[in-house]
Amino acid sequence: MSKINELQKFLQNENVDATFITTPDNVFYVSGFRSEPHERLLGVMIFKDAEPFVICPLMEVPDLKATGWEFEAVGYEDTDDSWEILNAAVQKRGVALDKIAIEKSHLTVERLERMKQLYSKAEFVRLDDQLNKMRNIKSEDELAKLRKAAELADRAVEIGCREIAEGKTEMEILMAIEFEMKKLGAEKMAFDTMVLSGPKTASPHGTPGDRKIQKGDFVLFDLGVSYEGYCSDITRTVAFGEPSEAQRKIYETVRAAEQAAIDLVRPGVKARELDAAARNVITDAGYGEYFTHRLGHGIGISVHEFPSITGTNEMPLEEGMVFTIEPGIYHPEITGVRIEDDVAVTADGVEVLSKFPKELQIIQPK
Amino acid sequence: MSKINELQKFLQNENVDATFITTPDNVFYVSGFRSEPHERLLGVMIFKDAEPFVICPLMEVPDLKATGWEFEAVGYEDTDDSWEILNAAVQKRGVALDKIAIEKSHLTVERLERMKQLYSKAEFVRLDDQLNKMRNIKSEDELAKLRKAAELADRAVEIGCREIAEGKTEMEILMAIEFEMKKLGAEKMAFDTMVLSGPKTASPHGTPGDRKIQKGDFVLFDLGVSYEGYCSDITRTVAFGEPSEAQRKIYETVRAAEQAAIDLVRPGVKARELDAAARNVITDAGYGEYFTHRLGHGIGISVHEFPSITGTNEMPLEEGMVFTIEPGIYHPEITGVRIEDDVAVTADGVEVLSKFPKELQIIQPK
Repeated sequence: MSKINELQKFLQNENVDATFITTPDNVFYVSGFRSEPHERLLGVMIFKDAEPFVICPLMEVPDLKATGWEFEAVGYEDTDDSWEILNAAVQKRGVALDKIAIEKSHLTVERLERMKQLYSKAEFVRLDDQLNKMRNIKSEDELAKLRKAAELADRAVEIGCREIAEGKTEMEILMAIEFEMKKLGAEKMAFDTMVLSGPKTASPHGTPGDRKIQKGDFVLFDLGVSYEGYCSDITRTVAFGEPSEAQRKIYETVRAAEQAAIDLVRPGVKARELDAAARNVITDAGYGEYFTHRLGHGIGISVHEFPSITGTNEMPLEEGMVFTIEPGIYHPEITGVRIEDDVAVTADGVEVLSKFPKELQIIQPK
Repeated sequence: MSKINELQKFLQNENVDATFITTPDNVFYVSGFRSEPHERLLGVMIFKDAEPFVICPLMEVPDLKATGWEFEAVGYEDTDDSWEILNAAVQKRGVALDKIAIEKSHLTVERLERMKQLYSKAEFVRLDDQLNKMRNIKSEDELAKLRKAAELADRAVEIGCREIAEGKTEMEILMAIEFEMKKLGAEKMAFDTMVLSGPKTASPHGTPGDRKIQKGDFVLFDLGVSYEGYCSDITRTVAFGEPSEAQRKIYETVRAAEQAAIDLVRPGVKARELDAAARNVITDAGYGEYFTHRLGHGIGISVHEFPSITGTNEMPLEEGMVFTIEPGIYHPEITGVRIEDDVAVTADGVEVLSKFPKELQIIQPK
């Protein structure tokens, strides 16, 4: 069943007259049309009992049609009032809008106020949970793209490891990775690539810079690739030269924590149980205070999407969910280490999409 | 006067108790703290009569403090309810919130609903126009950053021109540009770099790919660089090999249109007059139907911000405004050409920030 049909059925079941979807990621999800409209209006309008349409800037109509969109394409020019154009397309369908579902976690207050002017008697209800429920469970086609995105990220870490050398800067390594990835046909990186070295690994959200790699550093790669609209997000931390005992202990603790969470993944287990499994390993080893973030996040069209793998999320896992598992220890005096995989829940367990080895890789200075 | 003071004065004048700013670009603008919180809560709360605070994930508090933020930093953990933490910080100040200004064009419906639960008696008013008014007029410090960002974009086009060669793909040229830019210290490109060749130049929003450059092509570069949080956005179209008469005529028409708009820029002229000046040149030359977008857009912390330079915007220009001027002709049979500069309105005229030459550059095949 197409996403449009699935949403139409939802509207019929809930007796909602229409839904208007405007988040670019959700527009792509339901229509296959990928566009970043900035402040311009882009949306998919789906009706309980009428033909859906996409509204977008006139100059993007050919791109929309090229994706195979089979319903109406409503274009407007920069000088038009796009909401009037939208309303005309609604009026043409002759349906009353008494109940409209919107993405409350994305639609702006200003746009809702505009819709309330046009449909002053309408009640506005949440579409978010329905869309999240759909996006939460990946189809075989989506999984195939996520696998490919993860494979490209594995390659990116491989390239990063190859580039590490005494005196090279984080930025030089980062550029070499991105350059090679584009050559390999990656559309783009899924987010700003992170290459951190030495003490900078102890910042979970650091910024790569001109620091030069030195013997004894750990080097952390956190990166992802976008492939046909789907993202990967993986982290590996490697050693440059022989690591100290203290570094090794932190590394092995994170690795054990990550594996403990992976080993638990199967339908029915609660998200919070994964977080607890990893966190317990780290706490028992005495590093609890240095693991300062949640265990993971869903991944798909967006780098961060549902489900959130936190210590309080009671949601049971289901087949088809894809998310990251990424425990870390950020010790300001010794080193930071994070290991992150993208995993999919299968019928009876887990598929780990990212394959780059997790035994501590020691890169020998030449 | 700091942005915080300026907003505080606005709240006092308008008798608004507080404002909550959550758009990452606006958070950066008022606080100097640049962060992409994804779905997590990040915001600056400014009060009429109390100390402001920033709320952000706990692990980002050190980064916030490193920017020199001199007021309270309120951190929360992933397992906290961030809105309860926010409310506690408000309660501590002992001020009543009867009127709250919000960014209606950015704040989501869900977040407003949450704020209404916390402050059920409050009236919510727009902050947008005040913030836009402030961001519309760049300070000398901001102008300096925008100049530097434009200078880097000039270099990027230079590199692109140097890289053009028979049989090279758009993506290869694009990668070379981005690689060199990072070496030159550009933080990152301001948006996805566009390198289009031959018939692909006729798509205003095309995607670079594997098309190989051929003699007789026009090659279009649309790119920008982010420098200390400020963006550039420039376009140049160059010829590879001797252009045809038809190509030349389109090029010279766009160039004359662009110059006509630039020549008009000074305080007091209306935005729509610029659009008309460029559009008239193109229409008079018989290409009106091929200029399918507005003339330009404001640029600063965001690649697209106010003011919008359209045929209907009656707003008079003021000293300190910075925007793009970017007419184009997209002729499906001959070629597409766009020329785009970043310009600043000065006390008595215009400063063109981007300097790459606009005489048609003809790159000779070897």
